Amino acid sequence: MTTTKTRPALNGVDTPTLFATLDAVKGSPELAKFQFRATNRWISGTHNRSTIRGFHGAGQEDTSRTEDFDYDADHPAVLVGTGKGPTPVEFLLHAIAACLTAGLANIAAARGVRLHEVSSTVEGDIDLLGILGLSDEVRNGYQGIRVNFQISGDAPEETLRGLVDQSRARSAVYDVLTNGVPVAINVETR
Amino acid sequence: MTTTKTRPALNGVDTPTLFATLDAVKGSPELAKFQFRATNRWISGTHNRSTIRGFHGAGQEDTSRTEDFDYDADHPAVLVGTGKGPTPVEFLLHAIAACLTAGLANIAAARGVRLHEVSSTVEGDIDLLGILGLSDEVRNGYQGIRVNFQISGDAPEETLRGLVDQSRARSAVYDVLTNGVPVAINVETR
Repeated sequence: MTTTKTRPALNGVDTPTLFATLDAVKGSPELAKFQFRATNRWISGTHNRSTIRGFHGAGQEDTSRTEDFDYDADHPAVLVGTGKGPTPVEFLLHAIAACLTAGLANIAAARGVRLHEVSSTVEGDIDLLGILGLSDEVRNGYQGIRVNFQISGDAPEETLRGLVDQSRARSAVYDVLTNGVPVAINVETR
Repeated sequence: MTTTKTRPALNGVDTPTLFATLDAVKGSPELAKFQFRATNRWISGTHNRSTIRGFHGAGQEDTSRTEDFDYDADHPAVLVGTGKGPTPVEFLLHAIAACLTAGLANIAAARGVRLHEVSSTVEGDIDLLGILGLSDEVRNGYQGIRVNFQISGDAPEETLRGLVDQSRARSAVYDVLTNGVPVAINVETR
């Protein structure tokens, strides 16, 4: 066993199990294939609701999540919605913050760095001339996203910064947002 | 006034106000510049929580959303988390479904199409060999996302399909997911 593998649990991360999971996947790479899912139902106007629960991974359908996670989305009043939830694009900001933060905690545990606090603010700039159809030169989506982390932990500044670097290097959401992903849309009418 | 502009409210969409908003932005394009935000705080392990509320747009700070929207994210047990929320990547699936659905309802109202039901399922395939650091040839993020819509409304099939086409053509989340966006990350240590 390497030194790394003998790291104890830290930051709420079960580090031994994390490394055991890595070893298991090394031995059976097909365990790494996952499919995540969401369902969505239109309610009224720009208000709709998604449900998230089941997924397939590690060779089987997950049974550990025993309740649905439900999320409303809507446009705010200024965009002619009813504000019953955040806008869809705001969930992208949540996703990037959450992904980088989860990775950061795992990496800190793997490196033996005790974290005290991790918080972040995310900003996304968007010019709605695109989605409003008022300009063909303005993109529909964000023009840029900024993530600002505040981190404290038992390590020098450069070590803490290195945790963020590694989290970014292995972040699923960062990859999708910065590199894009193919999105196929199918329609069934009734 | 054009015929389009005299469309009445439909599908829960205040169509006259929607067109008035478009006219206002045409006259003052700077109103279209928005900044959305989220804050996130690490809780323990892969569990963290984002808060969404304020945004800037239409020339001012929004005051219409008077309560915070809070969202937990976590990894599931099989990924050594505690499942206190969906994974960050699942929120991307919610975001794309919500964005396309909100746009669809607006476009249907603008075109005078009464919708009965709109639902969708979204699937994202991801091979975790990337984020686990076990392969440099596998990307960290989704390899592909599929959105499957079921739509019923008072219009022929091709008209209903056309609503989805136009929604996709003006979707902020679809643009970000398929084309990517620059993400800057800054770190402040304490």
